[in-house]
Amino acid sequence: MTNRRQLKLGAVLLGVGGPGQHNTWLDPEIPGDASVDIRWYIARAQEAEAAKFDHVFIVDSQFITPNSPNHYLNRLEPLTLLSAVAVHTTHIGLVGTLTTSYNDPFNVARRLASLDLISGGRAGWNVVATGDGGTAGNYGRAEHYDYATRYGRALEHVLVVQGLWDSYEDDAFPRDKERGVFFDPSKQHPLNHVGEHFSVVGPLNIQRSPQGRPVIFQAGDSDEGRDLGASIAEAIFTHAQTIEQGQAFANDIRARAAAKGRDPENVLIVPGISLVIADTDAKARDKERALRGSKDFDRALRELGRPFGWHDFTRYDLDAPFPDVGDAGDRSFRTQAERIKKLARDNGYTLRQVVQHTLDSWRSPFVGSPLTVANEIQRWFEAGAFDGVNVTVNAPSEFARFTDGVLPILRERGVVRREYEASTLRGNLGLPVPENAHTAKRLIGASR
Amino acid sequence: MTNRRQLKLGAVLLGVGGPGQHNTWLDPEIPGDASVDIRWYIARAQEAEAAKFDHVFIVDSQFITPNSPNHYLNRLEPLTLLSAVAVHTTHIGLVGTLTTSYNDPFNVARRLASLDLISGGRAGWNVVATGDGGTAGNYGRAEHYDYATRYGRALEHVLVVQGLWDSYEDDAFPRDKERGVFFDPSKQHPLNHVGEHFSVVGPLNIQRSPQGRPVIFQAGDSDEGRDLGASIAEAIFTHAQTIEQGQAFANDIRARAAAKGRDPENVLIVPGISLVIADTDAKARDKERALRGSKDFDRALRELGRPFGWHDFTRYDLDAPFPDVGDAGDRSFRTQAERIKKLARDNGYTLRQVVQHTLDSWRSPFVGSPLTVANEIQRWFEAGAFDGVNVTVNAPSEFARFTDGVLPILRERGVVRREYEASTLRGNLGLPVPENAHTAKRLIGASR
Repeated sequence: MTNRRQLKLGAVLLGVGGPGQHNTWLDPEIPGDASVDIRWYIARAQEAEAAKFDHVFIVDSQFITPNSPNHYLNRLEPLTLLSAVAVHTTHIGLVGTLTTSYNDPFNVARRLASLDLISGGRAGWNVVATGDGGTAGNYGRAEHYDYATRYGRALEHVLVVQGLWDSYEDDAFPRDKERGVFFDPSKQHPLNHVGEHFSVVGPLNIQRSPQGRPVIFQAGDSDEGRDLGASIAEAIFTHAQTIEQGQAFANDIRARAAAKGRDPENVLIVPGISLVIADTDAKARDKERALRGSKDFDRALRELGRPFGWHDFTRYDLDAPFPDVGDAGDRSFRTQAERIKKLARDNGYTLRQVVQHTLDSWRSPFVGSPLTVANEIQRWFEAGAFDGVNVTVNAPSEFARFTDGVLPILRERGVVRREYEASTLRGNLGLPVPENAHTAKRLIGASR
Repeated sequence: MTNRRQLKLGAVLLGVGGPGQHNTWLDPEIPGDASVDIRWYIARAQEAEAAKFDHVFIVDSQFITPNSPNHYLNRLEPLTLLSAVAVHTTHIGLVGTLTTSYNDPFNVARRLASLDLISGGRAGWNVVATGDGGTAGNYGRAEHYDYATRYGRALEHVLVVQGLWDSYEDDAFPRDKERGVFFDPSKQHPLNHVGEHFSVVGPLNIQRSPQGRPVIFQAGDSDEGRDLGASIAEAIFTHAQTIEQGQAFANDIRARAAAKGRDPENVLIVPGISLVIADTDAKARDKERALRGSKDFDRALRELGRPFGWHDFTRYDLDAPFPDVGDAGDRSFRTQAERIKKLARDNGYTLRQVVQHTLDSWRSPFVGSPLTVANEIQRWFEAGAFDGVNVTVNAPSEFARFTDGVLPILRERGVVRREYEASTLRGNLGLPVPENAHTAKRLIGASR
């Protein structure tokens, strides 16, 4: 098992750049079709593996408009992508986003178990409740699930999937050629789940995977989102602009997890961060200014519509007070929409000021020379603001500034690993292998 | 484009053996966990590619009972599997089974388009309407769809998926770094489909794939199944015990396709066949007898229940007339169940005789020395009984008897290819690249 107090490292592979990264694809190092080129993902994953990262991370979206960020417009499906990466890597974890809103638990369970078997125990599932309200239209629904239903479904979905992963005890397949015994039916267990959102009989059609259960990642900052994370997440993808915010989030999640009877140490906080690294601090600040200058105001204005169900903000006067958009957003990214409305209200912002604030909020707190960035990451880590970071990977040479510049400093100080401790994601993250529910039940029964 | 009159070759990769192949897993060459070992599939696919096969083929099932065949009990999800195979092969097609009964068209469309992009144009979709009635319970339904609904859904599902594959015209992503144009929104098209079974707005979140649309495979012998195949299939997986059966099936499908306004040449007939090859005809016949002798009567009796919704036949007297099972099977593999009932009725068979007949019906018509088998395959092919064959792959040394013994003879005669003609499955099968519906529409409009 790993040293639990070493910094966890994830690499978010975005191809041509995600929300707010309007011009990333213009980088000469990034092929315009990076988001649909499997060789791009395999090469970046191999680089992250060489730097002993814990995992690569693939985001997702299933609702597209002409205004969608480049990366969402045209992308590979996360698990199809990760399965190809699995067979060209050996140690790095493979975390894919699959929504609980528009997937059947049976399909999710078998696909993730398959990835876990193919990768020898490196699969992770980033559990999301779909935010884009328009997604409903791609799945035969007139309207997206309301907020409470979305989170109710998410929790029940994960519990069903985990139940299906326990369909077979570890020794259900003796495959004893001498005795002619392939399978022991007494170690196969149907689920017989009947719940508010799902009914699933089971059993699954795949053995228990090398990790017992793939690692559960989750994101979500609302009260409901935090509660879901505290209930089921083993790693939480969040964001943090300051150490204090990070600490408060980590403390809140750990308290919620403890209140649910979980060991709070088994919930890792791993925010997504972007880095701006140059040879000197001054050069890094220049670079950060140039990056900010290249942001595209018009596209940020259009993207502002996303949390509000792709509300069209281009029709308003930019210099009038932030418009009243009614309940737009109630069935989309509600927390984010509420936060923007509050920001405008509290500060009396115009629409232009809100967009500008959004552009500014994409600023990274990790700007500087390799030494400065290493020091800052260590400071946050030691202050308990996070257990690890998910680093956004764009141009390979920029990623190399982190792997070859920052990481050696942290490695020297014992903050990050020198070698993988395990060949599974769970092993490297220092998370326990969950016991099969059926075996556990029998053990409890026997000890009475 | 390929010579259309060369024999097409598919390899059905079953791991530890499919229905009726009870003891395949005992073969010392086959690891007991072959069905969940990605290295097994990659190695077999590479062997098939070295022999210039058109494609590998992965079957599927989502309903499990303790009596399920070994291969179904514990298996990798087909597309997760094929994505891993894609990045360790370069020319061979990758055909995966996905049911239209329990998958959303949006998810199917993006997963197959992703596989097509990852493989550089080698994806195929084996379209099925789920037969196992019990599958319903794994997807929150009290009862499986009735027969007509199942086939109505299948047809509409495929049309929706194909519509989604046309969401972007081929030049929708200029990715012109000099002009700063990533995307041309005028070449993105929502689907806005509202049908009896599905409503899907679109557009898809992935560009048109290298084949335009992945190749559609289909199986199904009922009237509804043949009609579906004639409507949408580009290759039909069937079975044939005699040349005459094969010819009749091929003629029927081609007539139905022509009646639907399709070019019948664009529907390939590729039955699954098993081969028994030895150095001499006499040795091959001995081998076939030994294989038959190793069949497991008790497990065949249990598997007989599958088409009847896993009806339990073990509770009947084996030597009494075939039991009246009422409407068991109406919501499962109806055609197969009806055929078995008719067989028993027409011949006055007991249950034991029906099981024995099933065991016998697994006999291969392709038994003999490499020369005999090559002659027989050529005879069927030239008689129009099939356009190609899907060969079941079990032990590698047996597969080598086909690739190294039979194929060189057929290659010498010009019946099979020496080299791949193309790097896409469509190209190698000699199937045309479908035009994007939106581009076609505009061309028709312009010519008026």
